[in-house]
Amino acid sequence: MTDAADASASTERRSFAPDGTSYRLPDPAESAAGMAALRTAAEAHRRRGGKVVAVQGLGFVGSAVAAAIASARDAAGNPLYFVIGVDLATPQSYWKIGKMNDGLVAIPSPDQELTALIHEAACIAKNLVATADSSAYDLADTIVVDLPLDVVERFAESEQHIAVRLEPFEAALRTIGERMRPDALVLVETTVPIGICERVALPILQSARAQRGIQSPLLLAHAYERVMPGPNYVASIKRFWRTYSGIDATSAAAARRFLESFVETERYPLQELSNTVSSELAKVLENSYRAVNIAFIHEWTRLAEQIGVNLFEVVNSIRVRKGTHDNMRFPGFGVGGYCLTKDSLLAQWSATTLFKTNISLRMTLDALRVNNAMPLHTLDLAREAAGGDLTKPLVVAGVSYLAEVADTRNTPSEILADALVAANARFVTTDPYLKLWVERPELAFTDSLEEALLEAAGIIFTVPHKRYRALRPDDFFELAPRLEYVVDAFDILNDATAAGLHARGVRVIGVGKGHWRAMGYQR
Amino acid sequence: MTDAADASASTERRSFAPDGTSYRLPDPAESAAGMAALRTAAEAHRRRGGKVVAVQGLGFVGSAVAAAIASARDAAGNPLYFVIGVDLATPQSYWKIGKMNDGLVAIPSPDQELTALIHEAACIAKNLVATADSSAYDLADTIVVDLPLDVVERFAESEQHIAVRLEPFEAALRTIGERMRPDALVLVETTVPIGICERVALPILQSARAQRGIQSPLLLAHAYERVMPGPNYVASIKRFWRTYSGIDATSAAAARRFLESFVETERYPLQELSNTVSSELAKVLENSYRAVNIAFIHEWTRLAEQIGVNLFEVVNSIRVRKGTHDNMRFPGFGVGGYCLTKDSLLAQWSATTLFKTNISLRMTLDALRVNNAMPLHTLDLAREAAGGDLTKPLVVAGVSYLAEVADTRNTPSEILADALVAANARFVTTDPYLKLWVERPELAFTDSLEEALLEAAGIIFTVPHKRYRALRPDDFFELAPRLEYVVDAFDILNDATAAGLHARGVRVIGVGKGHWRAMGYQR
Repeated sequence: MTDAADASASTERRSFAPDGTSYRLPDPAESAAGMAALRTAAEAHRRRGGKVVAVQGLGFVGSAVAAAIASARDAAGNPLYFVIGVDLATPQSYWKIGKMNDGLVAIPSPDQELTALIHEAACIAKNLVATADSSAYDLADTIVVDLPLDVVERFAESEQHIAVRLEPFEAALRTIGERMRPDALVLVETTVPIGICERVALPILQSARAQRGIQSPLLLAHAYERVMPGPNYVASIKRFWRTYSGIDATSAAAARRFLESFVETERYPLQELSNTVSSELAKVLENSYRAVNIAFIHEWTRLAEQIGVNLFEVVNSIRVRKGTHDNMRFPGFGVGGYCLTKDSLLAQWSATTLFKTNISLRMTLDALRVNNAMPLHTLDLAREAAGGDLTKPLVVAGVSYLAEVADTRNTPSEILADALVAANARFVTTDPYLKLWVERPELAFTDSLEEALLEAAGIIFTVPHKRYRALRPDDFFELAPRLEYVVDAFDILNDATAAGLHARGVRVIGVGKGHWRAMGYQR
Repeated sequence: MTDAADASASTERRSFAPDGTSYRLPDPAESAAGMAALRTAAEAHRRRGGKVVAVQGLGFVGSAVAAAIASARDAAGNPLYFVIGVDLATPQSYWKIGKMNDGLVAIPSPDQELTALIHEAACIAKNLVATADSSAYDLADTIVVDLPLDVVERFAESEQHIAVRLEPFEAALRTIGERMRPDALVLVETTVPIGICERVALPILQSARAQRGIQSPLLLAHAYERVMPGPNYVASIKRFWRTYSGIDATSAAAARRFLESFVETERYPLQELSNTVSSELAKVLENSYRAVNIAFIHEWTRLAEQIGVNLFEVVNSIRVRKGTHDNMRFPGFGVGGYCLTKDSLLAQWSATTLFKTNISLRMTLDALRVNNAMPLHTLDLAREAAGGDLTKPLVVAGVSYLAEVADTRNTPSEILADALVAANARFVTTDPYLKLWVERPELAFTDSLEEALLEAAGIIFTVPHKRYRALRPDDFFELAPRLEYVVDAFDILNDATAAGLHARGVRVIGVGKGHWRAMGYQR
């Protein structure tokens, strides 16, 4: 169906994956043929007593969720589900379909389990197929919604300025309503503003079904995901806690049965909440909690630095209090990704716009502002380390928002890079997990640390990738012969490395006064 | 030395304990005789190879710490220390000395271990004596400072308006410097503003010692306590984590040896920090962390209530994530006590006044404001439950700031009571652990729940005392025949009780929509 190597006509439309491979968008005849084959396979699976699942949206969440569902087996070892991944036939998205049909992970991941699951499902069991054809929903017993739902402006000035891009979500739900089997379960996994299932998804689905004359009750549920791209990608779906709710008891029960079939619920019992508003609130509360605790420590990081206290030492001493204080955060570089940067805004948008309350989640929103400012603090540390001169070659080591992941969504490195540009700094960015920095192609980037360091006078370490953690003093002197300073924005170097650099004249500044004891400093 | 029962001359000055007993303040001749006896006993102990410890300040912390130290034994089972508790011969304080010398706990506590330790030490081993005579410091190998150190104004408008009452602390340190043995260890346990040991205690002690011609190095250390009055009072001292630091390595080592002698450090290894500024910061950071997390949930409590979500159910579903989310707080009534209401202010005072930084701990201080406003939210719930009419008899059940403790310091019940007075509400306060409400004698109070409930149209439960938790629907109808509504501000009733009240026509409102599912409400 796809072919990355063979680029024939130059007029054809292609979709490029972040790894540089590309997939030709199918023409209508190809699409129709593909869908016919898919339908035949799905119906064969159903005749054998299996069910069909459609997963809408093949991003970081949907692609891995589809593979996890496809891995479910009955007592005899046969696949429980025929899984159809659905995404758009656009140049921006079609490569995700192509990768899945090739049995490949869409985004490079260090989780071998994910690689194995997708290969097994797409190529061996052949119960995982991707398509852009929305008639796939006709076939499904369960439709899992894993679309993104975006906040328009991450840096909204006030509660009233927060805007949410609901339209793509609404359009997708409408499509489902127009095509779904009357008794199918629609399971929303997307992180939505509080109230969306009852106030947006429900009326859209009901209206579309009414137009089709469907009388039977709608099965609609919400079960938020906690997918963590990275080394435990599949585990974060199959071996982790799940919370769910339904618009009524029947929907909740259907969601439970479905989740039980691919989540290890004996070890991680499912959590049912009273209604979808509650589980929608739970998701954004959970992530806001994390964001607030990160911001809180950043506030104290600045104090600790100014009065000469190593905050890592302090936080470690407090975290011994298991159960009450052991999740206190450490000083760091900032907050990125798709969740912690926006989920609090979804909550406030619901409070203000959907529920028309006068509630201001003041501390919660303040935390987002503090977190957005954290990379600027790193810039201050770099200025200090560089003696104010940022004109010598500088390396920003780490572009992903998370260690060991090729994921640059809302990465704090972007805020730092923008500030470096504004400061007329001379810098190159690097990350071992990326071939290019999709969102910022205009910035100098290399995936080779060696190349980046060749001329470097300074390095700012921003992401705790293992590659950086493994560096020893000799590596620095070999790779970066002109090195004058290092800023460790995320406690990436160990104390011995910092001490070794310091001993040989390299200035090391760690956020939160990290490494100070190693460098012989007592206060 | 003391006599609670026999009140002779009416002109004599007496000191009244919260339980109503009183102690006559000693005259100079009595004091001198008492001190001579104490000196003889201390010197006898030293001749047997033991050490002498003075504990300055016999409040909630000092009295229990003194008992814990006195319980330390050598391998042969003999007391390691002769412990002298020191407080003031004033009507406000002398009763603490009297209680200790009678072998009684100063403040009623449900911890039988504390009762036993004090009795054993004061009456049987006779290695625990209290005095108001500061010549006690002459005798001590270790002087433990457990004085209070207060913020002048809990509701400071801005960073610059925070004022700290340092003078009593400074005067106490001066007294120690004037009397201490040259080689004694001064161990500060008081929660102090960051920087106080180095910038205030050290120069005061050095100056007083210099005037005495002492040349030997000063031993000065900081080891903050985590004393929790309540059922685990002694355990919070002897079987819990301790963090310490010294003004130099010798001081830190001396502090370690001392702490190891009465804390179970095999199970709870001591945490040493690089300097006293770090451990001072650790203490106020730790408590600020708690205060911020309480405030964060309060913000979401108001949202949850307005959109009809039971936040207890939601938080419980999130707390299954052990290690990262299991210390998320629940909705509640407010924050009281001596630590969480002021420690953040000490930190900000140090940042602004002592270290002259421009740091604003904005989120941290905002949390204090949110927490101070929590009891006013409870008043709103009471208004709602009462249909706006607070003129019928109302009971505030719970005056202590903590369950199972007679401790009214900065209790949020005070903020609620003030607001009820301002609202012209007709109310009585009650608490099973108090004989009277020392700070607010003008308010109607009874320790008898039965008496309080006799006429009650409404009850606001504010403290999760076991006595309240144990109430069942029948108890309510027996004790409060006129009951119309109940506000549960701290998840004190169980769902079955709430349902039972609801079924018989009593309106129940729980903070954070607690008990709603039990009452058959789905949203």
